[in-house]
Amino acid sequence: MPNRQYDAFIGGVCEYDEAEIVLFGAPFDSTTSFRPGARFGPKAIRADSYGIETYSPYQDKDLSDLRVFDCSDLELPFGNAEKALDIIQSHTAQILGDNKIPVMLGGEHLVTLGAVRAAAARYPGLCVIHFDAHADLRREYLGETLSHATVMRRVWDILGDGKIHQFGIRSGESDEFSFAREHTNMNKFDFSGLERLPALLKDNPVYLTVDLDVLDPSVFSGTGTPEPGGVSFSRLHSAMLSLKGLNFVGCDLVELAPAYDQSGASTAAACKLLRELLLTIGNGTGGK
Amino acid sequence: MPNRQYDAFIGGVCEYDEAEIVLFGAPFDSTTSFRPGARFGPKAIRADSYGIETYSPYQDKDLSDLRVFDCSDLELPFGNAEKALDIIQSHTAQILGDNKIPVMLGGEHLVTLGAVRAAAARYPGLCVIHFDAHADLRREYLGETLSHATVMRRVWDILGDGKIHQFGIRSGESDEFSFAREHTNMNKFDFSGLERLPALLKDNPVYLTVDLDVLDPSVFSGTGTPEPGGVSFSRLHSAMLSLKGLNFVGCDLVELAPAYDQSGASTAAACKLLRELLLTIGNGTGGK
Amino acid sequence: MPNRQYDAFIGGVCEYDEAEIVLFGAPFDSTTSFRPGARFGPKAIRADSYGIETYSPYQDKDLSDLRVFDCSDLELPFGNAEKALDIIQSHTAQILGDNKIPVMLGGEHLVTLGAVRAAAARYPGLCVIHFDAHADLRREYLGETLSHATVMRRVWDILGDGKIHQFGIRSGESDEFSFAREHTNMNKFDFSGLERLPALLKDNPVYLTVDLDVLDPSVFSGTGTPEPGGVSFSRLHSAMLSLKGLNFVGCDLVELAPAYDQSGASTAAACKLLRELLLTIGNGTGGK
Amino acid sequence: MPNRQYDAFIGGVCEYDEAEIVLFGAPFDSTTSFRPGARFGPKAIRADSYGIETYSPYQDKDLSDLRVFDCSDLELPFGNAEKALDIIQSHTAQILGDNKIPVMLGGEHLVTLGAVRAAAARYPGLCVIHFDAHADLRREYLGETLSHATVMRRVWDILGDGKIHQFGIRSGESDEFSFAREHTNMNKFDFSGLERLPALLKDNPVYLTVDLDVLDPSVFSGTGTPEPGGVSFSRLHSAMLSLKGLNFVGCDLVELAPAYDQSGASTAAACKLLRELLLTIGNGTGGK
Amino acid sequence: MPNRQYDAFIGGVCEYDEAEIVLFGAPFDSTTSFRPGARFGPKAIRADSYGIETYSPYQDKDLSDLRVFDCSDLELPFGNAEKALDIIQSHTAQILGDNKIPVMLGGEHLVTLGAVRAAAARYPGLCVIHFDAHADLRREYLGETLSHATVMRRVWDILGDGKIHQFGIRSGESDEFSFAREHTNMNKFDFSGLERLPALLKDNPVYLTVDLDVLDPSVFSGTGTPEPGGVSFSRLHSAMLSLKGLNFVGCDLVELAPAYDQSGASTAAACKLLRELLLTIGNGTGGK
Amino acid sequence: MPNRQYDAFIGGVCEYDEAEIVLFGAPFDSTTSFRPGARFGPKAIRADSYGIETYSPYQDKDLSDLRVFDCSDLELPFGNAEKALDIIQSHTAQILGDNKIPVMLGGEHLVTLGAVRAAAARYPGLCVIHFDAHADLRREYLGETLSHATVMRRVWDILGDGKIHQFGIRSGESDEFSFAREHTNMNKFDFSGLERLPALLKDNPVYLTVDLDVLDPSVFSGTGTPEPGGVSFSRLHSAMLSLKGLNFVGCDLVELAPAYDQSGASTAAACKLLRELLLTIGNGTGGK
Repeated sequence: MPNRQYDAFIGGVCEYDEAEIVLFGAPFDSTTSFRPGARFGPKAIRADSYGIETYSPYQDKDLSDLRVFDCSDLELPFGNAEKALDIIQSHTAQILGDNKIPVMLGGEHLVTLGAVRAAAARYPGLCVIHFDAHADLRREYLGETLSHATVMRRVWDILGDGKIHQFGIRSGESDEFSFAREHTNMNKFDFSGLERLPALLKDNPVYLTVDLDVLDPSVFSGTGTPEPGGVSFSRLHSAMLSLKGLNFVGCDLVELAPAYDQSGASTAAACKLLRELLLTIGNGTGGK
Repeated sequence: MPNRQYDAFIGGVCEYDEAEIVLFGAPFDSTTSFRPGARFGPKAIRADSYGIETYSPYQDKDLSDLRVFDCSDLELPFGNAEKALDIIQSHTAQILGDNKIPVMLGGEHLVTLGAVRAAAARYPGLCVIHFDAHADLRREYLGETLSHATVMRRVWDILGDGKIHQFGIRSGESDEFSFAREHTNMNKFDFSGLERLPALLKDNPVYLTVDLDVLDPSVFSGTGTPEPGGVSFSRLHSAMLSLKGLNFVGCDLVELAPAYDQSGASTAAACKLLRELLLTIGNGTGGK
Repeated sequence: MPNRQYDAFIGGVCEYDEAEIVLFGAPFDSTTSFRPGARFGPKAIRADSYGIETYSPYQDKDLSDLRVFDCSDLELPFGNAEKALDIIQSHTAQILGDNKIPVMLGGEHLVTLGAVRAAAARYPGLCVIHFDAHADLRREYLGETLSHATVMRRVWDILGDGKIHQFGIRSGESDEFSFAREHTNMNKFDFSGLERLPALLKDNPVYLTVDLDVLDPSVFSGTGTPEPGGVSFSRLHSAMLSLKGLNFVGCDLVELAPAYDQSGASTAAACKLLRELLLTIGNGTGGK
Repeated sequence: MPNRQYDAFIGGVCEYDEAEIVLFGAPFDSTTSFRPGARFGPKAIRADSYGIETYSPYQDKDLSDLRVFDCSDLELPFGNAEKALDIIQSHTAQILGDNKIPVMLGGEHLVTLGAVRAAAARYPGLCVIHFDAHADLRREYLGETLSHATVMRRVWDILGDGKIHQFGIRSGESDEFSFAREHTNMNKFDFSGLERLPALLKDNPVYLTVDLDVLDPSVFSGTGTPEPGGVSFSRLHSAMLSLKGLNFVGCDLVELAPAYDQSGASTAAACKLLRELLLTIGNGTGGK
Repeated sequence: MPNRQYDAFIGGVCEYDEAEIVLFGAPFDSTTSFRPGARFGPKAIRADSYGIETYSPYQDKDLSDLRVFDCSDLELPFGNAEKALDIIQSHTAQILGDNKIPVMLGGEHLVTLGAVRAAAARYPGLCVIHFDAHADLRREYLGETLSHATVMRRVWDILGDGKIHQFGIRSGESDEFSFAREHTNMNKFDFSGLERLPALLKDNPVYLTVDLDVLDPSVFSGTGTPEPGGVSFSRLHSAMLSLKGLNFVGCDLVELAPAYDQSGASTAAACKLLRELLLTIGNGTGGK
Repeated sequence: MPNRQYDAFIGGVCEYDEAEIVLFGAPFDSTTSFRPGARFGPKAIRADSYGIETYSPYQDKDLSDLRVFDCSDLELPFGNAEKALDIIQSHTAQILGDNKIPVMLGGEHLVTLGAVRAAAARYPGLCVIHFDAHADLRREYLGETLSHATVMRRVWDILGDGKIHQFGIRSGESDEFSFAREHTNMNKFDFSGLERLPALLKDNPVYLTVDLDVLDPSVFSGTGTPEPGGVSFSRLHSAMLSLKGLNFVGCDLVELAPAYDQSGASTAAACKLLRELLLTIGNGTGGK
C-alpha cells in the first residue's frame, strides 16, 4: 500500500531527528484589527509550494540538499493570545533545545513573540532583524498589550535597546517612530543600511522576522493590512540573500492571508521566499 | 451646507430619544474557529441596504412607519472576548433601560451572550428563541468557555432549563444533542413546532437570536461555517413573521461574513431579513 | 482557409434571411442605480452557452430544429437613454417588419421599452407578460422618467390598462403596488394565475419580458439588485414552458450582470433559459 | 516532538490495515471540455472538512465509529487518460483485494472508469448507481473515446445492459437519451424510482458514482459544467441515505472544481455528503 | 448614549465651519464605456481608510493636524450627465465660496468637469494639473460630448490653450495626441518635466485631477480601464509631494472601481494617496 | 440588416486573402500540471481588447495601418496532445504557405511546438526567441515527452544547438540549466544580451514565443504558474520593440489563464502586448 503522502512544504521530507531546520505553522490571527485570515497562511503555502521548483537558480542549490522537517501546524486557541504564545514558545524551545533552527509560518505577527521568547531564553545577546511595512512598536493597541501592532515593542521588552534592526517601515503612529529613534535601529521605507549588518552582527545569534507586507501590495496583496509603497519581490529577495552567513537561530514569515489572494500570486511569493530563506540559512547538516 | 449624510441602515433615520428600536453593530469575531470575517457584517448590511426598498409587500408596511435609530458599530477589542462582552452588555442595558428594543448585528455568535446578559438582568423569565445551523451548546471549545461554539450553553447557564427554543439545528457534537434533549427545546433541521411558540411564550419576554447560517448555503454562503442542508429564505422569512405579537425585548442577526459573499446575495438576504424583522417587532411608537 | 468562427449563441447558425428568430444583445446599463454591469450580459451568455447542450430533454427538441440568427450586440451610447432606446426600437422594428421574432438580451431592464415600442407599433392589442422581482412601475426615479425602475410604467403609457401581466413581483414602493392594483394584472411573489393566460391571451400578440432577478439569488446572484425570496430555476422554467402556444411576437431576457457571477452559475441559468425559451417560441419555419 | 499532523479528511485517522474504508483522491481533469480544475477537488475537501463535525445528527453516528484510512491523492499524469485510468484501476484493485471499500474523490468523472474496471473484475454482477446532471453516454467526444462525456458508455461496455441505474439526468445529446432507453435504467431530472433499488439490487454488488453536479448550481456552483435545474442538497442527501443496506463495494464523489467555489459552499456540501456517505456504507468493522 | 459614529474618511472629524478642506464623493459612472463601478469608489475609500494610519512618516505630519470635513457623497442622477455635473458644480462653488478647498472623490473622470467649472468661475487664470493614463481629449465619444473620454477637452473649452498640464498619458487616439501638441502641455508616459511646474505655476490657482489609472495596473487594478505600463505607487506619491507649495484651490482622485479590487490593494492605494494629498495641500488653518 | 459583428481582436478586420498577419487561438491546456485554464486565454484577449486603443503612442502607429485577419480559435481535442499539435501545425503551415505571418494565442506553452514544426519545415535556419519564467527544457515530465514543461526541449530536437535564445528564465530544475549551458543561449532573470540579437539574427528567419509568465506576477497574475521575481510590463514591452526589423515568420503569446485574473489587469496586459507585437512585426502590406 502506498504510504500516506504528507502534505508538507515541497522538499521538506526528512525526519525530525535528522533535520537541521524545522518548519511549522502558527495559525493564529485573533488580534488582527483590520482583515483577519492569516491563520490560513501556512496551509496555503504548503499547498501551493508544488507550483515552484525545489531548485534555486539564484543560489544554484536545491532543497534536496538540505534537511528540512515540516511538522505541520500547531493547534492554537482562538481568542486567547497568551495561551497561544505559550504553545508557540514551548514548541520553539524544544526545537532549539535539539539544536535545530525553527522556521515559523504565521499567522499574524504576534506569533513572533512566542518564538523570540524561546530564542532569547536560549541565546543571550539575541538580535532581531525585522522586515515590515509597520513599526509594530505600540505600547498597547485597543487596550491590549499583546497585539500584532505591539509585537516588536514586546520583543524590545525582552531584548532591550539596540537589538532590533527594522527595515522597510512605512507606517505607524508618530509615537512609534519616536520610540524607534531612541530604542531600535529603524530604517524607514527600504533596506538602506542592511549591508552593515553582516559586520555588525557577526558575533550575535540572529532571529529574522519577515512580515510579508513589507512587499508592495502589487506583489503581495494577500495580507490583512496592505500598505502601498513597499519593496519589490527582487529587492526583498536580494535583501534576504545578503544576510547569508549570519548566525541564524530562528526565522519566521508572517501575515499571508490567502482570502485576499484570489490569483495565488501572493502565496507564490511566500513559497519562493521560503525556499530561498531555507537555502540561505541551511547548510545541509542535520540535527544531533 | 448639506448635513453629513449618515451611512445608517436604510430607513433608520430618527433620533435616539424618539426611537422604539435601536440598531447597533457588534463587530467581533475573534473566537471564530474556521473562517473569520463576521466583524465586517454590520457595515456590509448598512452599505447594501440601499439595494432594497423600505416597503414590505409581505407585511404592507414601511420602515418609515417605525422609529428606528441606528447608532452604528461598537468599538470592541479584538482578542479579548470578556471585555467585548462587557461592552455589549452595558450598551444593551442602556438601551433596555430607556425602554427601547435593541437589535444587534453580529459579528460572530458569541456577541449574543452580552446582549442576553443585559436582557436577562432586566427581564426575569426571559426566553430565547434560537435559529441556527449549529447547536452552540459545548461546555468549552478549544479550551475556552467563551466561544461562538459555546454561546447557547452560556446562555443556558443564565436562563436554566426549558427557556431556550432552538430551531434548524443540523450540526454539533453528539454531546450537544444529548444536552439539548435534557435542557433545551431543540427542533432539529427545520422549524417544526414553531407554531406552538406564540401560545407557549405569550407571557414571557422574548429574545430572538438568528444565526444566519440557519439558511442553506445556497442562499447564504457568506458566513464562516456554511452548513449544507438548511432552510430556504422564504421558510426563514415566514418563520420570523409567524412570531409577530410575541413580547420581543431584544433581537440579533449574526454571522454574516461578507468576504465569502462575492456576489452580494448573502448580504442582500441579511438586509431583507433585518427589514422584515424590524417591521415584525416594531409598532411605530417610540421611546419614552 | 477556415471561415471565421462566429461567437454566436450555441446553435444560432442560420442566415438572417432564413431565420424565424433573431437574437440580439442590448448592452446598456446606464440607469442602473445599485450595481451596474448588465451591459456584459449578452457576451457572457454567448461565451458560456458552449457549456450547455443544444438538445432539451424537457421538450425533446433541439436548437438545430430551429432557425435562429444571432446578430450580436447593438452599439448603444452610454449615458444617453433616449438615444439607446431609439436604436433598439428601430432595430426591433426591422426584425418585426421581416416577420421574424426578436429575442433581445439585456442589458438593464429599460431596454425592454425600445422593443415594446416597436412591437406595439406593429401589433395592436399587444399584451406584455412580465416576470420580475421588482414592479418597475415608478412614475420617475431619481428625477428621471426613463429608468430601469420605471420601465413598466412607460410600457403602460403605451399599452394602457389591463395589458400588462406581472408575476413574481416582491419588491417596490407602496405606490407601485397601489398602481398595479388599478392598472396592471400583478401577481405578487410567484406564478399563481399564470395558468389562466393561455385562455386569456389566445387572441393577442404577446411580448414576454423576463427580468432574470425574478429567480432567487441562490440561483441567480449575478444581477445588479439581488432580491431574496424568489422562485427556483425549475419553477421559472416550467412557467415559461406553460406559455407554449401563445402568439409570441417578441421576447427578452434582461439583467444578467456577470461581474457578480464568479462561479458562472447565473450565466449558465440564463443560457439554459434562453435555449428553452427559443424552443418554446420557435417552430422551425424561417422568415419570408 | 509532535508527530506529523496528517491533513486527512476529518475523522479519517486509522491505519490502512485496520481500515474498512479507504479514501483516496484521483486528481485528474485533462479531458474536461468546458472549465477544468476538478483536479483540486480532493485537496479542497480535506482542507475544508474541518468546518464540519464528525457526528451526524441525521444518522446519529460519528465518523469515529468507523475505520477510515485516507491515503491521500494518487499521482496521475496530466494529458494521458489511459495511463491515469491504469493507475486508478490498480490502486482500486489492491484495496478491493484487501477486502476494503474504496471511496474515490475526483477529479473529473472519467476517473470512475478506472475504479469500475477494478470493481467489475473482482465482483461479477456489479451494478452501478449513477447520480449526475449529464448522461455521459456518448460513444465518443471530440474524437476521443475516453472522456468525462463518455464515461458511462465505457462503463456500459464492461457491464452491459440493465446494470446502470441513472438518476437526476437533465442534459445530454438526443442520442444519449435514445441509448439510455434501450441500455440503461435512466430516470430523468430527479430520483423517482430510487426507492425500488434496495429490492432490485439486494443480491448485487453495487458501485455508487456521484457526479456532484447532479445538485442544482445554487447549491453546488463549484464544478466545471454547472447545469441548472438540479436537486437540492437535502434531496441528494436523503437519496444517499435511502440506499443504506445495499452491498456497496465502492463509491466515488467527483467533479468538485474549487476555483468556481469562491464562497466554499460547494466544498462544504461535498464534505458533508462524504461524511454521510461514509456513515451510510461503513459499519465499524475494519479490514483483515 | 454614544453619538452616531460617522463613517467619514479617517481623521476627517472637524465641523464644516472650521474646515480648511472639504471632502466629498461624486458617485457617478454612467458614461463609463468599458467597465462601470466607479460610483462605489468613495464609499470604499472611506471604509478601508481604517486600514491606514493618520500619521505620514513621509511628511512627518498627521491628519489630526489638519481641519478636514468629510460631507459624504452627493446624490447624483444615473444616466443624466448634465444634471450630475450641475449638482457637482454648485456643491463645489459653495465650498469655494466659503474659502475652503474642495477635494472630490470620483466616480468616473467626467465629474472633474463640474468641479473645474466652479473653480474656473471663481479663480481666473486657473491651471489644471492632470495625472492620467488616458488623454481624455476627444471631441466626442460614442456621439456624446460629455464623457469620461472627453472630459479634458471640455476643460480646455473653458480654460483655453496652455492651461492644462498632463502627465503619465499613455493611451488615446492619434487625434488626441495631435490636439495635445497644439493645445495642452502633455508629457507622455511619466512625470518628466513635473519639476518645472512649481516655478511655472507659482502665480496661478491650481486644480489637481488625479485619475488613479495613471498607476500601473499591478498597483491599481481596481479601475474600469486598466492600462498597462503605468507608474509605480512611489513615483506617483513623490510626484504629488513635489507639488507642495502650489496654490491648490481644488483637487480630485477619480476612477477607483472596487469591484475589480478583490484584494483591496487598489483601495488601500487610494486611501494612502488621499491622506498624502490632504497633508500636502492642507496647512492646519481652517475656514472663515 | 446589420452584418454579424465579429468578435475579433480590436482592429483585426480585414479579410484573409488581404491579410499580412493571421491571428488565431490555440485553446489547449491539457498538460498543465499546476492550475489549468489557459484554454480561455484567446477568448478573453479578444473580449477585453475593446478596453484598449488601436493607436500606439509608443510606436505612433495604428492597427488600422495593418492588415490583420483574426480567424478565431482552432477546435482542439482535450486530453490528446499529439492530435492537438497536428491541428496547430497544419493550420500554421497553411498560413505560412500563403506568405502570411501566423500569430498564435495560447493556450498552454506546448502549443508552440505545433507552430514551430510548421515554421521550421518552411524556413530552414529558423531561430526561436523565447521569453519565459521557466526553462521548459525537461526531457520528459510526469512520464510524458509532450508537455508545457518540455516544449523548448522538443523545439531543440528540431532546431538543434544554438538556435534557441532564452530570456527571463528564473525557474527550472538544475538539469535544465545545465542543458541550457550546452545547447541554448539562455539569459537568466532578465533581458541582458537581447541587444545583440538584431545583429546576430539579421539573416535568419525568426519565431518569437512569449510565455507571458515572464512578467512578474504583480503585473500578470492570471497564469497557471506564477513565478515571482519577473520583469515589469515596460521592460517586456521595450524588449519586444527592440526586436523590430528582425525577419519574423511567426509569433505567439501563451499562458494567459483568465480564471486567475479577477481584476482583468493580466488580460489587459496581454491585449496591449499583442497590439504592440502586431505593430512591431507588421508593415501594412498584405498577403499575395
